[in-house]
Amino acid sequence: MRKAETENLARVVIERCRKLASFSEDAGGIRRTFLSPAMHEVHAEVGSWLKPLGAEVRIDAAGNLRALYPGSASAQRLMIGSHLDTVPNAGAFDGILGVVLAVALLESLAPRMLPFGVEVVGFSEEEGVRFGIPFIGSRALVGRLDDELLNRQDANGISVRSAIEKFGLNPAEIPQARIDDDVSAFLEFHVEQGPILEEIGQPLAAVEAIAGQTRMDFAFAGRSNHAGTTPMHLRRDAMAGAAEWITEVEKLATNTPGLVATVGSAKIIPGATNVIAREAWLSLDVRHAADPVRMKAVQDLTGRAEEIARRRGLTVSATTRVNQEAVSMDPTLVSEIEQAIQKTAARPYRMVSGAGHDAMVMAEKVPAAMIFLRTPGGISHDPSESVAEDDVAKAIECGLHLLEQLAASSLFQTRTQRA
Amino acid sequence: MRKAETENLARVVIERCRKLASFSEDAGGIRRTFLSPAMHEVHAEVGSWLKPLGAEVRIDAAGNLRALYPGSASAQRLMIGSHLDTVPNAGAFDGILGVVLAVALLESLAPRMLPFGVEVVGFSEEEGVRFGIPFIGSRALVGRLDDELLNRQDANGISVRSAIEKFGLNPAEIPQARIDDDVSAFLEFHVEQGPILEEIGQPLAAVEAIAGQTRMDFAFAGRSNHAGTTPMHLRRDAMAGAAEWITEVEKLATNTPGLVATVGSAKIIPGATNVIAREAWLSLDVRHAADPVRMKAVQDLTGRAEEIARRRGLTVSATTRVNQEAVSMDPTLVSEIEQAIQKTAARPYRMVSGAGHDAMVMAEKVPAAMIFLRTPGGISHDPSESVAEDDVAKAIECGLHLLEQLAASSLFQTRTQRA
Repeated sequence: MRKAETENLARVVIERCRKLASFSEDAGGIRRTFLSPAMHEVHAEVGSWLKPLGAEVRIDAAGNLRALYPGSASAQRLMIGSHLDTVPNAGAFDGILGVVLAVALLESLAPRMLPFGVEVVGFSEEEGVRFGIPFIGSRALVGRLDDELLNRQDANGISVRSAIEKFGLNPAEIPQARIDDDVSAFLEFHVEQGPILEEIGQPLAAVEAIAGQTRMDFAFAGRSNHAGTTPMHLRRDAMAGAAEWITEVEKLATNTPGLVATVGSAKIIPGATNVIAREAWLSLDVRHAADPVRMKAVQDLTGRAEEIARRRGLTVSATTRVNQEAVSMDPTLVSEIEQAIQKTAARPYRMVSGAGHDAMVMAEKVPAAMIFLRTPGGISHDPSESVAEDDVAKAIECGLHLLEQLAASSLFQTRTQRA
Repeated sequence: MRKAETENLARVVIERCRKLASFSEDAGGIRRTFLSPAMHEVHAEVGSWLKPLGAEVRIDAAGNLRALYPGSASAQRLMIGSHLDTVPNAGAFDGILGVVLAVALLESLAPRMLPFGVEVVGFSEEEGVRFGIPFIGSRALVGRLDDELLNRQDANGISVRSAIEKFGLNPAEIPQARIDDDVSAFLEFHVEQGPILEEIGQPLAAVEAIAGQTRMDFAFAGRSNHAGTTPMHLRRDAMAGAAEWITEVEKLATNTPGLVATVGSAKIIPGATNVIAREAWLSLDVRHAADPVRMKAVQDLTGRAEEIARRRGLTVSATTRVNQEAVSMDPTLVSEIEQAIQKTAARPYRMVSGAGHDAMVMAEKVPAAMIFLRTPGGISHDPSESVAEDDVAKAIECGLHLLEQLAASSLFQTRTQRA
């Protein structure tokens, strides 16, 4: 494929992302949660690009768009895709770009066939906005869309099951959405949603792992007193203790390679200018590619909180909300991606994803990997989220190289052959 | 007066405070704001104790209860009192105790007369709850209840002026509420509302100054980013900057004798577990008896905030809400109070009031001073606010000694004589 064609296709990809962004629940911004009415329009639009290529398009019972472009020699298939839902007040690229890029790769390929099939997937749900639990779409593919999740209700009391029915799908057919032995690998293009690639001046990265994460609440409690009449040495100031601990959180993360730790929310009680705080409720978010490093950080920070509380005559209680292990991407795929990046004349770069992605769920069943695209300003989950046309062109180039490499690899022999 | 009598009177004082606490706007707790209907009941009750003593009781046009017990030799008078209003969910002693103690002193005295008169005053408003501006009662006495304040409205759109009319008083007569040259001094008993006297094991203190205070808002602003995808060194975390500054506030105050500095409220934007904070809004409350010390502390803390912001790639803006100078109590009165405390066999102790009081306003016109009573647990502005019967007995003893001392002093010669 010539450079001019790739550049032209990159432009089309960006235009298509913007077009899909116009299908929204909100008049004033982008918001498209699990099987909201706007998802019908997205399915129709994406389907209209895929059908002319000879792909067989369907919506599975979990609301995922699935389009199989057959292979010439094998029933084995490579899945490529990402999610079609968005957060409220979203940008136009998070998730969507990965689906539109998959379509573009098929367009570049058609009418040629690879030895294996390529199935484009547009997951119905990844963000966890409507039901408070993410990955509904990819969970269906790995067989984890269970009754508990199906019965979960949104803010209006509508269950996942009933949302599926309202969309015109049949929850009884969810088992048929599961992937089988004929899926050999999953590949996901996604915006980085962070500043690293911009910082190092590279358009693409191979994601080698999705960081594990711990989310906790810490509640420091002291004694509420008059800010004017209580001398410093007689205070039990929950805010001051909390502040000391926040600086420790930052210090530990800064001194531990690859660790991120964040206190993003604070609630102070009673929260008045002239009253010493009785309680300070803080959130903690800790992530690392290596679970032992994360666990040790959590343990250290809990210990530091207790030590600070003890010294200050406060109490502290810690509650764990999320404790999610790190997920490695498939080493063979990661290495193939690095080679493909190198062929685009970019520097191969491996990184850890600090955010969760569908590839993390898919990795439970098949070799999976991701390709990150540089995100201008690291800005995501915001209307100003963007992606550079040149970087999209590099992603297409990289994807085409990768398809050729995989066609020549042993990954798409049937599983029984491999076994 | 014998010890048993003083103890009995202390019991009566506490019972009376509890009785007055029953006159409330709220069914479930104590709340008595400026000229609320419950204030009629308080006036009637306090008046019923004063009239049998031969005191002439009136309610001035600002709603202050005024009761003059005449002197034997001079038209000069000593005012003794405090405020009759309360905060919401109040205790039974803040303010009220100072009025009830003044009544008790007259009861101990009657029918004897001192050379000078004693005017008991129960101020209508000190807490600033209803109109957001405190000291409405004492402002009237020093001639500062002006049109701007009279036109100020409460949450229901009722002005101070109209509240006065609704209570059955005539705002046109406010000038007659002003004190004149015949008032020679003002004395206020008040609960400490802090932990110092309890800490040092003393029942009473002479207040030598009311601390000046500065109240400010500090807004740190950085960049909101994904907590999982943004490495520590690429963050502009407003929360982390704010936390560092809060620890500096505490450190500076701890290392500066007599200074208190408090960050009592914090608002974090957006305030989500997995999002790095873009903005952190903090309050700052700084108090000290010496204005230059307070001003230097405010300047240092503002400088530290700017330095922290600069180093972290944040911005910070500071807004001053209150800048109130310290007020010295009258040195002669303070010294007389110390002597009177010593005569009760307690250790004389001087302290600075970190909170504002009516004595601060009265000091604009007349020599003024305060006597603090130990506050169990330092707890005030709370239903569990209390005072020990023994400490009230000591306060009565101290007050009686003080009256005798003042009767022998030159303070109550007429002003013209003194001039």
